[in-house]
Amino acid sequence: PTTIDWTPVMAEKGGFRHFMLKEIFEQPRAIADTIAGQVFEEEGAVFLDELKMTDDELAQVSRVVIVACGTSWHAGLVGKFLLEDLCRLPVEVEIASEYRYRNPVVGEESLVLAISQSGETADTLAALREAKLRGARTATICNVVGSSIAREAHGVIYTHAGPEIGVASTKAFVTQLAALHLLAIRLGRTVGTISREKGRELIGSLVKLPGLVEETLRIAPVVEAVARGCHHARDFLYLGRGSCYPVALEGALKLKEISYIHAEGYPAGEMKHGPIALIDEQMPVVVLAPRNAHYEKTISNMEEVIARGGRVIAVATEGDDTLVAKAEIMLEIPEAPPELLPILATVPLQLLAYHVAVLRGNDVDQPRNLAKSVTVE
Amino acid sequence: PTTIDWTPVMAEKGGFRHFMLKEIFEQPRAIADTIAGQVFEEEGAVFLDELKMTDDELAQVSRVVIVACGTSWHAGLVGKFLLEDLCRLPVEVEIASEYRYRNPVVGEESLVLAISQSGETADTLAALREAKLRGARTATICNVVGSSIAREAHGVIYTHAGPEIGVASTKAFVTQLAALHLLAIRLGRTVGTISREKGRELIGSLVKLPGLVEETLRIAPVVEAVARGCHHARDFLYLGRGSCYPVALEGALKLKEISYIHAEGYPAGEMKHGPIALIDEQMPVVVLAPRNAHYEKTISNMEEVIARGGRVIAVATEGDDTLVAKAEIMLEIPEAPPELLPILATVPLQLLAYHVAVLRGNDVDQPRNLAKSVTVE
Repeated sequence: PTTIDWTPVMAEKGGFRHFMLKEIFEQPRAIADTIAGQVFEEEGAVFLDELKMTDDELAQVSRVVIVACGTSWHAGLVGKFLLEDLCRLPVEVEIASEYRYRNPVVGEESLVLAISQSGETADTLAALREAKLRGARTATICNVVGSSIAREAHGVIYTHAGPEIGVASTKAFVTQLAALHLLAIRLGRTVGTISREKGRELIGSLVKLPGLVEETLRIAPVVEAVARGCHHARDFLYLGRGSCYPVALEGALKLKEISYIHAEGYPAGEMKHGPIALIDEQMPVVVLAPRNAHYEKTISNMEEVIARGGRVIAVATEGDDTLVAKAEIMLEIPEAPPELLPILATVPLQLLAYHVAVLRGNDVDQPRNLAKSVTVE
Repeated sequence: PTTIDWTPVMAEKGGFRHFMLKEIFEQPRAIADTIAGQVFEEEGAVFLDELKMTDDELAQVSRVVIVACGTSWHAGLVGKFLLEDLCRLPVEVEIASEYRYRNPVVGEESLVLAISQSGETADTLAALREAKLRGARTATICNVVGSSIAREAHGVIYTHAGPEIGVASTKAFVTQLAALHLLAIRLGRTVGTISREKGRELIGSLVKLPGLVEETLRIAPVVEAVARGCHHARDFLYLGRGSCYPVALEGALKLKEISYIHAEGYPAGEMKHGPIALIDEQMPVVVLAPRNAHYEKTISNMEEVIARGGRVIAVATEGDDTLVAKAEIMLEIPEAPPELLPILATVPLQLLAYHVAVLRGNDVDQPRNLAKSVTVE
């Protein structure tokens, strides 16, 4: 495997205490750069020339399989919602280290999409090769031009996050989500599930996303204060439904990676099937409850947590008075179209993990036991 | 929703201290009863008449979607391996509470299989109805005759576990796996991916399963001793690959449910993408490493855990000298064909959760916050 030759020297911290914090604040720019030049808003059209697929080829795709590891796998889980909802194609999201050893059922009817920030993740590369061998059309969402995965996939959608130095991925994740949006719109426009008008509307929202992330980042001082109140906790649960379930997984992974607190993400509806037994007064429970189709159900799960003494930190839409009355702590995100909420909801969770880890005195940019790119199996 | 009217009075503890322990020891019988009358070993054939699908109807299935919650969802994840491997059909396994609210892509090409011990799990029933509405053929693996899900699905495969009283499911899980074996053999024989001879071989193994589980149960006193050494731990990790990954999830869920220890299951290959940061000398790590195709890779993950000071409890094939030298503790299971290993490997994990919970003084059969059947959303 190739090694990544970006070094910390190449990216300055630009006044931030850590690369991770700098990279969290670079997210609006990273998203804008990923979208730039790829959309024609007036036409409701997306280009993605480097995907190297004609409309005919795209129209032949009857199934999408996403392979990835870690944070990129979480991006894939959000992608499943986007692609199924907007393109009405079945989407499977697979952990690359599992997929590659599984004699997978895949062939030319499938588009296999490998997601990797570095483009060098060994298991993801191997999964891509496995799928290619079996005749699948392949593509990658990747942040590094000329990386192994970018070279081997039939087509590429590049994220333009710039070098990411912090081991805990932040800006790469949100640009992967932006890239998945682009792919869903391109595919949906081609197969006819997205009209020109709907395409215009979706692109119109997407171009506003950098501004909305900027607005979300204003919550940073609040999150720091919240971190002071919970950085001694031994365990955290993160709950979400629908496209906020992967955000729960991602929030938990961030905390785990850099604070070494045992955090676990769960689909909120599964809580009653086991994890609710864990909840007591010591357990902060982060509930992702922005106003979307899952709002009511999520609130009812939140009430179960509260009834069992859990301390709820809610990520919610600004001005949600119902939640102010119920949750111990509210982290507000701006109102936005539902498909953008997973990205906005991620931001306070990145900041929470960051501040908790700093308060615990950890090396945020170089957490113990972890490497930036896992280029071994 | 209907309530389940089995009461503890109806099932005696039969000399066991708790229903859960009794039910763990009833597993050989429960599996034998589930298989009984469904197989014709000489012909390599499986019947499953109550599935109510002709060979023609089965041959038209081009995709299987499994919907379930909790432990039944873990059974579904093992089922994905069996069905993909033996029938070469793509299988998606969905959490019912997520599926039902997701505008899923499903139609008459799909067989949707709802797995539920009680047949009354509200989210699973709703997911089944959603799929039925969209034209899918439906079936259920269920333990209760005449339950809502059994009534509403087009066809049924009954598990014959008998009444399960312990809130933490044990014998229902292993019978669900046996039922999934039966379905995979029936489907594979029909679509031609399993020859008569291969069918005979698979059924030959399956009928030996009760005896192998009986043999595995002999480890109970060893597991009790191991529990004495780790019942004060605050956190556990469970790692597995391939069809042992769902077993890792199930082992962690059992511990969580009745001991209230924060246990988490992970695909071993994902460890380097985050959870490895958690590992220190306080953390018992249960590694599922029976001799199968994933053995070498799993051992290499185990070595990473040991290098970081983690205490490894390995579930391994008896007589595995390599592992004896590496792991702090070995829990041995008998040698068996690879497709049976998930069932055998589950047994020591059930016993571990049971003994840890008893040592912590918990109410094993009625853990806090949990209900036996989740008949509300």
